[in-house]
Amino acid sequence: MWGIIATWRMALEGIEEAQDILENQGSASEAIEVAIQNVEDFPYYKSVGYGGLPNENMEVELDAAYMDGDTLDIGAIGAIKDFAHPISIAKQLSKEKVNNMLVGQGAEKYADHENFEKKIMLTDRAKIHYYNRKKEIEEQQIKPYDGHDTVGMVCLDNSGKMTAGTSTSGLFMKKQGRIGDSPLSGSGFYVDSKVGGATATGLGEDLMKGCISYEIVRLMKEGKHPQEACEIAVCQLDKELKERRGQAGDISVVAMNNQGEWGVATNIDGFSFVVASAIQSPIVYLVKNINGKCIHEVASEKWLEEYIQERIKPIVQK
Amino acid sequence: MWGIIATWRMALEGIEEAQDILENQGSASEAIEVAIQNVEDFPYYKSVGYGGLPNENMEVELDAAYMDGDTLDIGAIGAIKDFAHPISIAKQLSKEKVNNMLVGQGAEKYADHENFEKKIMLTDRAKIHYYNRKKEIEEQQIKPYDGHDTVGMVCLDNSGKMTAGTSTSGLFMKKQGRIGDSPLSGSGFYVDSKVGGATATGLGEDLMKGCISYEIVRLMKEGKHPQEACEIAVCQLDKELKERRGQAGDISVVAMNNQGEWGVATNIDGFSFVVASAIQSPIVYLVKNINGKCIHEVASEKWLEEYIQERIKPIVQK
Repeated sequence: MWGIIATWRMALEGIEEAQDILENQGSASEAIEVAIQNVEDFPYYKSVGYGGLPNENMEVELDAAYMDGDTLDIGAIGAIKDFAHPISIAKQLSKEKVNNMLVGQGAEKYADHENFEKKIMLTDRAKIHYYNRKKEIEEQQIKPYDGHDTVGMVCLDNSGKMTAGTSTSGLFMKKQGRIGDSPLSGSGFYVDSKVGGATATGLGEDLMKGCISYEIVRLMKEGKHPQEACEIAVCQLDKELKERRGQAGDISVVAMNNQGEWGVATNIDGFSFVVASAIQSPIVYLVKNINGKCIHEVASEKWLEEYIQERIKPIVQK
Repeated sequence: MWGIIATWRMALEGIEEAQDILENQGSASEAIEVAIQNVEDFPYYKSVGYGGLPNENMEVELDAAYMDGDTLDIGAIGAIKDFAHPISIAKQLSKEKVNNMLVGQGAEKYADHENFEKKIMLTDRAKIHYYNRKKEIEEQQIKPYDGHDTVGMVCLDNSGKMTAGTSTSGLFMKKQGRIGDSPLSGSGFYVDSKVGGATATGLGEDLMKGCISYEIVRLMKEGKHPQEACEIAVCQLDKELKERRGQAGDISVVAMNNQGEWGVATNIDGFSFVVASAIQSPIVYLVKNINGKCIHEVASEKWLEEYIQERIKPIVQK
């Protein structure tokens, strides 16, 4: 059995590439890296890699992580600028004896020394988004933060090895040096090949309050199906945040166990995700939370068409 | 009931200050900050704040975190240079709506903008340690990494509020930009006033593989005494690491529940910690792991005297 699950529709093309690898006895380590690189490369996804939205200084600072479910090796980078594939730097860091998590200039020096591909990650399109948002903030006092769609994946290969990976440009208009949950073990991702893995997307500042990815894996370890584990973890964190803080940020999660069974949960409307496995071609789903039960359905052709049109439509500077 | 527990003997003087605050109805928020500031200020502790050992470029890069167990607010900084009190910056970040975790230059800009005290944190004594270590590495191929004694504390005040905090200069000779577990929610610290809190010290790269502080709080939530929760969590992570990787890094933890009961566990010899509460004056203990059971005893006068002499003895450049 092999399988791969990912947050958001944007993962589809990457998942298709991973499918080729996993069907041909490739490893979960290679498949997840290729899949996430694909998302990092696509210029029209505003929240990951090339074309990602910048911070308040109009710099694209990227976070990423990789975890090996056999060894529990973790590699992570935070607030790194101008490298094409954050996921690959994180993956290589996971193989170092220590110094597995590097941030800022130190991460950039490591990546440069290791000859990772340099690339100006700020696109003209992202600049227009930035200038428009600046203008909106000046004119209307709109809260500058939204847009935090991390790509996160959990992968199982035919040998039973599991991996997890994340990559994101983080909150639009974030402060320089801001790190979200994506590079944080247990919050943005967690995987154990003996059990399964989980990854999260949403408001990183709230996701780290519940170590939600670790909690989902733990629930699966107790014997819960991934769907039940995801629902319990999201419901619990959403409830605690609302009770103590009056509100909860966006929380969406996907998980897969080492049998290739999967689950998803969210506290928002319109969370999309992608799954492929030995028993199903890549499918995009949409999920809704109805009183704590998360119901998913296959995304319609119309939704898929509108999704891509919305992403690539021309934008003008206001 | 009030109580405070901290990793390592170095916390003693800070805990004595916290005691004054907590006995006089001060908050867990204030007490933990004052206690950790005290450790940050003391020039002879080589692994926290002023006098902390530098990275491979001879820069002192500091990590810290603060968590409020009522609101689950988290603030964290990583790889920040030349500010006197990392804990205070982390605490203030915990009150921001978003951007609660900042690293590197971004963290420094924030701290500067908010008028936190600047201070050159690299001491002449730390420079001598650095040069001596460089020489040792050149001459003997000694592994450059050791010395990673984070100060971590969990605090309960008379109102029932709990907090957690950490501060460290991280691994001696670490790479620029390296972050350990100390600023990572669930790994270096976690606290929930409804349950209790925990904090860890040791090899950050391994601690984050098990989200050990979150796991301890979770075990306490299930009803476990802090001592049992600490022992289970350390034993479990140590076992998984050895099974999968052939070895486990240093793991030491302390925890307190919201009744002021406390626990400690370690997989090393000679882990020291400090506890004070409404029912006991500040006491330094030493703990040993004997077949999974962690037995602690009060540190002798002789040990305490030797400890401080060892810290302050003159050193010479080789």
